[in-house]
Amino acid sequence: MSTLREEALHMHRVHQGKLETTPKVAVRNAEDLSLAYSPGVAEPCKEIFEDPQTVYEYTVKGNMVGVVSDGSAVLGLGNIGPEAAMPVMEGKAVLFKSFAGVDAFPICLNTNDVDTIVNTVKLMEPTFGGINLEDISAPRCFEIEERLKREMNIPVFHDDQHGTAIVTAAGLVNALKLSGKKMGEIKVVVNGAGAAGIAIIKLLMSMGCKSFILCDSKGAIFEGRPYGMNDLKDELAQKTNLEKKEGSLKDVIKDTDVFIGVSVEGAVDKEMVASMNQNPIIFAMANPVPEIMPEDAKAAGASVIGTGRSDFPNQVNNVLAFPGIFRGALDVFATHINEEMKIAAVNAIAGLVGDNEVNTDYVIPNPFDKRVAPAVAKAVAIAAMETGVARRKVDPDAVEKKTYDLTMIDEE
Amino acid sequence: MSTLREEALHMHRVHQGKLETTPKVAVRNAEDLSLAYSPGVAEPCKEIFEDPQTVYEYTVKGNMVGVVSDGSAVLGLGNIGPEAAMPVMEGKAVLFKSFAGVDAFPICLNTNDVDTIVNTVKLMEPTFGGINLEDISAPRCFEIEERLKREMNIPVFHDDQHGTAIVTAAGLVNALKLSGKKMGEIKVVVNGAGAAGIAIIKLLMSMGCKSFILCDSKGAIFEGRPYGMNDLKDELAQKTNLEKKEGSLKDVIKDTDVFIGVSVEGAVDKEMVASMNQNPIIFAMANPVPEIMPEDAKAAGASVIGTGRSDFPNQVNNVLAFPGIFRGALDVFATHINEEMKIAAVNAIAGLVGDNEVNTDYVIPNPFDKRVAPAVAKAVAIAAMETGVARRKVDPDAVEKKTYDLTMIDEE
Repeated sequence: MSTLREEALHMHRVHQGKLETTPKVAVRNAEDLSLAYSPGVAEPCKEIFEDPQTVYEYTVKGNMVGVVSDGSAVLGLGNIGPEAAMPVMEGKAVLFKSFAGVDAFPICLNTNDVDTIVNTVKLMEPTFGGINLEDISAPRCFEIEERLKREMNIPVFHDDQHGTAIVTAAGLVNALKLSGKKMGEIKVVVNGAGAAGIAIIKLLMSMGCKSFILCDSKGAIFEGRPYGMNDLKDELAQKTNLEKKEGSLKDVIKDTDVFIGVSVEGAVDKEMVASMNQNPIIFAMANPVPEIMPEDAKAAGASVIGTGRSDFPNQVNNVLAFPGIFRGALDVFATHINEEMKIAAVNAIAGLVGDNEVNTDYVIPNPFDKRVAPAVAKAVAIAAMETGVARRKVDPDAVEKKTYDLTMIDEE
Repeated sequence: MSTLREEALHMHRVHQGKLETTPKVAVRNAEDLSLAYSPGVAEPCKEIFEDPQTVYEYTVKGNMVGVVSDGSAVLGLGNIGPEAAMPVMEGKAVLFKSFAGVDAFPICLNTNDVDTIVNTVKLMEPTFGGINLEDISAPRCFEIEERLKREMNIPVFHDDQHGTAIVTAAGLVNALKLSGKKMGEIKVVVNGAGAAGIAIIKLLMSMGCKSFILCDSKGAIFEGRPYGMNDLKDELAQKTNLEKKEGSLKDVIKDTDVFIGVSVEGAVDKEMVASMNQNPIIFAMANPVPEIMPEDAKAAGASVIGTGRSDFPNQVNNVLAFPGIFRGALDVFATHINEEMKIAAVNAIAGLVGDNEVNTDYVIPNPFDKRVAPAVAKAVAIAAMETGVARRKVDPDAVEKKTYDLTMIDEE
């Protein structure tokens, strides 16, 4: 641990951070200056003033994502504030560029107030082609995302919710192939009623999954539960746990097909897995230690187990989703990232694991599989064009090829 | 004109803007990822949480300037709005990096409200090591800068005011050597009571210049003038034109030593120059056509004439000032850019024209003189350390060398 710590500190210090802004055009002499700056720069200014849409053609906006945080829920560190969140947001920007050629810039805001964050991000719309919300604590993150989606004309995406949901759903799609079960028939129990847990349920619902029980630290959530509720839980309780089962996770996990944990180390034991239906599917994504260790889940009969960790198979890593999603959305100058685009991303990720390759240890592609971001970008661009949120038409194959060319990761 | 227009549009379109964000660390595989992102990234986060000052060491903040505009006074185009202002702000960011290795990012805000702009910029303090205000219309630009300087702990610099003032003052320092006059004895008339004109007077005052007459379109401004006044003119009127001269520019330019124009084409004629004291100094910076053309000014007896144009000698170009000023300020993690730092920049720029080189056509260095930004950075860093606004001590010679190494311009 001390080695990783020292290496990480050294790497951040020696470069004074991880990101820089770089000119795409050289300004080496007076002639360069007259084009990139005064007087030539007045020409694109005048074009954009005449036709605001051309800001996508003449400026960075069309390829630029703002990575916005208030530092209130950073990694597992909690509310460490906007300065201390900077290394994560810079890292996210580095991933956007490295995986999909998307320019991204960290904006860490010195406030936790919902109205202030919403208003501030809206004011920056001229600069950005998309907004990635990051590490903002629940339940504020839900309201901030909802309002920004409604009030802005560029894609707004809270990665902690949707990135995790999309990759988990992709894993589930492939896991169901192995277990021979269908999305419309499975019973799913989700442990953890935070941003990711709620987003996973909503996404799976829109993909046809019907039966859910959501648990929090007080056990199963049901409509009218007289303790530990909030607006979001009330809303979810109307659509989940229709039998109004009460009790602990241990009580309600019995006879379900899928466990999805975004909760805490050790929340599930072997006995609980054994109480599930045959060939249960487990996504145990607590960090750094999963709800149940893969070897224990398998010993208790689990068909497939995914975690958040890179040292186990089936890592649920958001980097499989967000770079390609924004690449596809930006390439069509999208106004929004809608449900259809998210589902397109799910199927693109799942589809990269071939039917003849899929097995219990391979339901999710490797994060460094260079095909992922290009496939996701293509699928997302198509879905955007089909659902009317694209400002321009593009050739989906060209999006895929471009994304592959822009990817800077090693083939695994 | 059509060629420049087409070339400029093509150059902006082919690159989709002029700036990109680039990783300083490669993320090509799982090991890279574990350092730049989770779990390694938690280490600098924890360090910054423990000691907020270390944000300068572990993140981009220490080398990052926000180029902030509301698009209300862009070039000579006026209030074209924040989208249409993007090419200029990107261009400015390109100049920061090309001339002095300073990372910079355009932030165009969709509001003209002073309170909103001030509050928004303050909220972004965790991300930026400095703020360059740009193309914000007067008089709002004065209040915005004043409040941000007071309420933020990073340098805030309105380049339209201070950049122009610093380069003009540098030219004047050298021009006075030629005319044999002293700063404390000259009479200066400034035509144009906007951002630049007022900043020029304030800077020259702090350099020991005592006698000014400020003119606006209604003529000489004097205390108690019953027409066309505002708070700023009232303030200036208490310190300038103490003889309360009335009349047009033509009336009051008589018997002065220096004319500084930040006004309009043709505001000055030969007769007016001839009415000035012997060896008058003219800075005619109206764009694109100066207040008086250099050949006419010389014919009427001008000792030195500077303009804003690259095709005449003595170009007053802000790029001589802002890159080196922020380079020096950032290298000492400065909290402010104060008057002493600005004067240090003036003298550094002026000093690059050797006493044996200075002549009527060479009182200001060429914008592509590679010595300028390094010399300015060194002088500004020294002044910051001497006046207590530096958060750390540095070796000034190392600042100069580093800046020279980072400069990407061709030698002229």
